[in-house]
Amino acid sequence: MTAPSPSGAAALLPALKFDRDGLVAAVAQQHDTGEILMLAWMNREAVEQTLATGEVTYYSRSRRKLWRKGETSGQRQRLVELRVDCDGDTLLLLVDQRGAACHTGTRSCFFRAVRDGALARIAEPIVDPKTLYGAEA
Amino acid sequence: MTAPSPSGAAALLPALKFDRDGLVAAVAQQHDTGEILMLAWMNREAVEQTLATGEVTYYSRSRRKLWRKGETSGQRQRLVELRVDCDGDTLLLLVDQRGAACHTGTRSCFFRAVRDGALARIAEPIVDPKTLYGAEA
Repeated sequence: MTAPSPSGAAALLPALKFDRDGLVAAVAQQHDTGEILMLAWMNREAVEQTLATGEVTYYSRSRRKLWRKGETSGQRQRLVELRVDCDGDTLLLLVDQRGAACHTGTRSCFFRAVRDGALARIAEPIVDPKTLYGAEA
Repeated sequence: MTAPSPSGAAALLPALKFDRDGLVAAVAQQHDTGEILMLAWMNREAVEQTLATGEVTYYSRSRRKLWRKGETSGQRQRLVELRVDCDGDTLLLLVDQRGAACHTGTRSCFFRAVRDGALARIAEPIVDPKTLYGAEA
């Protein structure tokens, strides 16, 4: 359990290779079950805030701003450990996810699979998405 | 166990949103242990070949061509299940990885973690990278 770790950013940032948009990919995995929850993006500031606070913060490419996971929906991600890949352009976030990671209300965003030649739904919502974002849903 | 599934591509492709470079991100996870092995990229053809053959094939952004995982190194990935996320721009590949997924010889590309304010190596190579690529390594 290393988070929050403000000093971790100083160690990590030189190892990162941000893309032409200033972003690295970040895969969130539930730390104890191994379930993959989602993939999102981080800029330098999102990495710093995540390590400083222990609350996972992404960069929203559509809204073009920082987005602390769960700030609207309440479905927060607490950082347990941050890992980085060999070429420094992808992060693996071991997290403790409260509730549903997906905006559709499923635990994981990966709720569809190719099975028997079709695209099958393999998980149902655990939270009503209407309750996550109020009138926006 | 759904792979190979050539007909799966017809079901999957309409759900995918390829980026401006014609790519989707693909996260590879060892199917039985849950370990995250790597993140790479796929274009439409890589998706089709992966589903048609059951051997995971990526698109190399640096070499600008299809790359069947393990074609040089022998460290192949057999597809067990292909999942897709809510917005169709990321795939989760449940795979059976032979040997090391990482070109550095570690099982996973995510062999570094922020611990105690430093970037620590948390896994050692299981294969000598020199043996993976011969004179290129």
